[in-house]
Amino acid sequence: MTSTEGNETLGLGKNRIEALTDGIFATVMTILVLSLTIPVITQPSGSEPPAQQLIDELGQLSGLLPAVLTYIISFVILGVYWVGHHNLFHYVRRTDRILLWINIAFLISVGLLPFTTALLGRNLTDQAAVILYGGNLMLCSILLRTIWWYVTSGHRLVDRDLDQHIVSIAGRRIITGPIIFTAAIVLSFVSTWLSMVLYASAAVYFIIPSHLDVHFTRRNVRH
Amino acid sequence: MTSTEGNETLGLGKNRIEALTDGIFATVMTILVLSLTIPVITQPSGSEPPAQQLIDELGQLSGLLPAVLTYIISFVILGVYWVGHHNLFHYVRRTDRILLWINIAFLISVGLLPFTTALLGRNLTDQAAVILYGGNLMLCSILLRTIWWYVTSGHRLVDRDLDQHIVSIAGRRIITGPIIFTAAIVLSFVSTWLSMVLYASAAVYFIIPSHLDVHFTRRNVRH
Amino acid sequence: MTSTEGNETLGLGKNRIEALTDGIFATVMTILVLSLTIPVITQPSGSEPPAQQLIDELGQLSGLLPAVLTYIISFVILGVYWVGHHNLFHYVRRTDRILLWINIAFLISVGLLPFTTALLGRNLTDQAAVILYGGNLMLCSILLRTIWWYVTSGHRLVDRDLDQHIVSIAGRRIITGPIIFTAAIVLSFVSTWLSMVLYASAAVYFIIPSHLDVHFTRRNVRH
Amino acid sequence: MTSTEGNETLGLGKNRIEALTDGIFATVMTILVLSLTIPVITQPSGSEPPAQQLIDELGQLSGLLPAVLTYIISFVILGVYWVGHHNLFHYVRRTDRILLWINIAFLISVGLLPFTTALLGRNLTDQAAVILYGGNLMLCSILLRTIWWYVTSGHRLVDRDLDQHIVSIAGRRIITGPIIFTAAIVLSFVSTWLSMVLYASAAVYFIIPSHLDVHFTRRNVRH
Repeated sequence: MTSTEGNETLGLGKNRIEALTDGIFATVMTILVLSLTIPVITQPSGSEPPAQQLIDELGQLSGLLPAVLTYIISFVILGVYWVGHHNLFHYVRRTDRILLWINIAFLISVGLLPFTTALLGRNLTDQAAVILYGGNLMLCSILLRTIWWYVTSGHRLVDRDLDQHIVSIAGRRIITGPIIFTAAIVLSFVSTWLSMVLYASAAVYFIIPSHLDVHFTRRNVRH
Repeated sequence: MTSTEGNETLGLGKNRIEALTDGIFATVMTILVLSLTIPVITQPSGSEPPAQQLIDELGQLSGLLPAVLTYIISFVILGVYWVGHHNLFHYVRRTDRILLWINIAFLISVGLLPFTTALLGRNLTDQAAVILYGGNLMLCSILLRTIWWYVTSGHRLVDRDLDQHIVSIAGRRIITGPIIFTAAIVLSFVSTWLSMVLYASAAVYFIIPSHLDVHFTRRNVRH
Repeated sequence: MTSTEGNETLGLGKNRIEALTDGIFATVMTILVLSLTIPVITQPSGSEPPAQQLIDELGQLSGLLPAVLTYIISFVILGVYWVGHHNLFHYVRRTDRILLWINIAFLISVGLLPFTTALLGRNLTDQAAVILYGGNLMLCSILLRTIWWYVTSGHRLVDRDLDQHIVSIAGRRIITGPIIFTAAIVLSFVSTWLSMVLYASAAVYFIIPSHLDVHFTRRNVRH
Repeated sequence: MTSTEGNETLGLGKNRIEALTDGIFATVMTILVLSLTIPVITQPSGSEPPAQQLIDELGQLSGLLPAVLTYIISFVILGVYWVGHHNLFHYVRRTDRILLWINIAFLISVGLLPFTTALLGRNLTDQAAVILYGGNLMLCSILLRTIWWYVTSGHRLVDRDLDQHIVSIAGRRIITGPIIFTAAIVLSFVSTWLSMVLYASAAVYFIIPSHLDVHFTRRNVRH
């Protein structure tokens, strides 16, 4: 902690910005669930056999599946951005006002996700909803990429000896997101289901370990 | 703090994962209350005696009791999972990407609880709602059990000298949840009220101290 | 931090419990605002003079005043409980499972406040709403008092040399709340407005410095 | 941490107050998004060409633009207040009960912003909504200014050697807000759109670096 103490801009060091980011991510992930509307289940008349009644009731709830699916995809992608944000800030040594405001722009676009997720969950086959969702995810990726560009260009806010290899691998990894999301938006003109498959794939893709991890693991000291 | 500094995967140490988990638990516990719909009370005509009016008004509010009951049960069980999560992470020494993502899967299922709680609170006698609630709780337990299995198998992410006794007691304790929740789901075919009793019992059961605490208390140093 | 390290019950030290409590208080205070319904203002026809139109529109919003009033009262009282909780935990040296669960019971009742606040805000003149609100506040006070009783009786979880004077002053101060809230509930049979005045007075009363502060200030070191 | 340890009032040091403030800001910023209502998009009949359908659907969503605009303005201004609050508390050395309660008053007005933002987002051309929004922002500014006045007057809670230059620059900077917001309210009698332009300008104005930053940067040590 002491090593970053002197880097704060008017008391707003890296730790503070990370704390606000963590708080917003935790709350955004939690209120995603508000996108699921709570149905009042119509109980079938008692004349049917119990097993049939249960199937009827579960049938009424199955309408929620698209919303649950988008909830899970959004939660996972938020997890990806959260991990990504920490990975980037791991290398940040100093902060300045511009970094602060790019970061707040990033948080504004992250904060919109519960809205676009709910919009998609309730209009899963609607192209406009699919495009807005993809656009929101793309905006998040682009702003995260901007943070990385800003702190690393000319080693502005990172260590002077930060390996250029890490800079370019991380940069390339973040930019994969927008490429997938662009493809999803284009495919929405063919079928919105293809777009959904791509959004889910993006979530899975980012969970799989990358070269960056391998690189880092070598430096990972065990106690 | 310094002792875990080197164990982080790209800046995502145990502390960070615990902080996100804490933030999500605090928010989930708080938004549980949104499952209670706020009624506009119809005031009886002034012709009745005041005491009778009060009874009428309280009668209108009594419809909220099932939702309040499920709110309390869910809050307590969330408390149990929160304590359980910290107990497990107490023994974790290193983190890796797989632990991170099992933990996020755990948080996804925890984050669904305000939804299944609200669903149950508004459809207390409905078997589908009772089953989904039990299924949600079971999913949380199984994922918590998976975390414990993953970090302890082959002492993957815990101390090499962690007592095998603690490993098996903790594992057995977590698995009690799914057993109770399975029983609750099976009993829902007889009566949904029996299931509710079991859910409430699970909450009470977990509050009672276990052998694990006794074991730990011996090591508990007083100042 | 190191001084309390050994006191934790399976990793759940005082710091952890305080962190969960802080997170829940921050979220509860924030979602209080959801008790204010957002009206769609009907714009008057353009034939009236602008000043009259503004007065008409503000008139439509004035219906929100009761809800804003209860929002402020609840926020202030939550602030009081938050300060009170920290004051008590300031003297806590050890934690145990029972303290943990009394604290969670306290958080459950705190978590209900956004509901009872919204209920009161929308039914300000309704006796049932006034009584439930007072009952909720009373429950919070009683559970906070129980925490203090539990940790201090026989110096169970506090320092052996904690001044008995502090124990009794703090205990007496917490118990003032339930007395005021009981009076408010009794007065609701006469007039719900009198109850509201008492709730507001309780908020003001707790803000005013007490003997406890004076006592403490003497020990307050300046740098 | 140790350096501020002795300054706490009954356990409520600067760190605690900052932590509550951070938690509330993170949650307020996040629930701002709840001001956006989630529309169910009416899909046009299949007889139209796909491109036309998409335009129709996007047209339905365009009604959300005013709400998105106010969401962004509010998020940015909240960011400004959050930064401002930390800048002020950077110089605070001691806390007392009065500071605590001015700060809670500040948080109460910050906590109202999701309400006034939603009100404005749904009634963008309505003068009453425009005035209430400006009034809310003004209240936040005035309370932040009060905090600064309280801690600095007679060097009450700041270092004795705090530069008088910083005191007056910071004070003047905070007071710029209320001036802009007053102008916005006055202009609402001419056109509510002019007010919106001023609110947006206020957001931009505060992002631009001030003399205070320049002053501070000189003391900013690089590692």
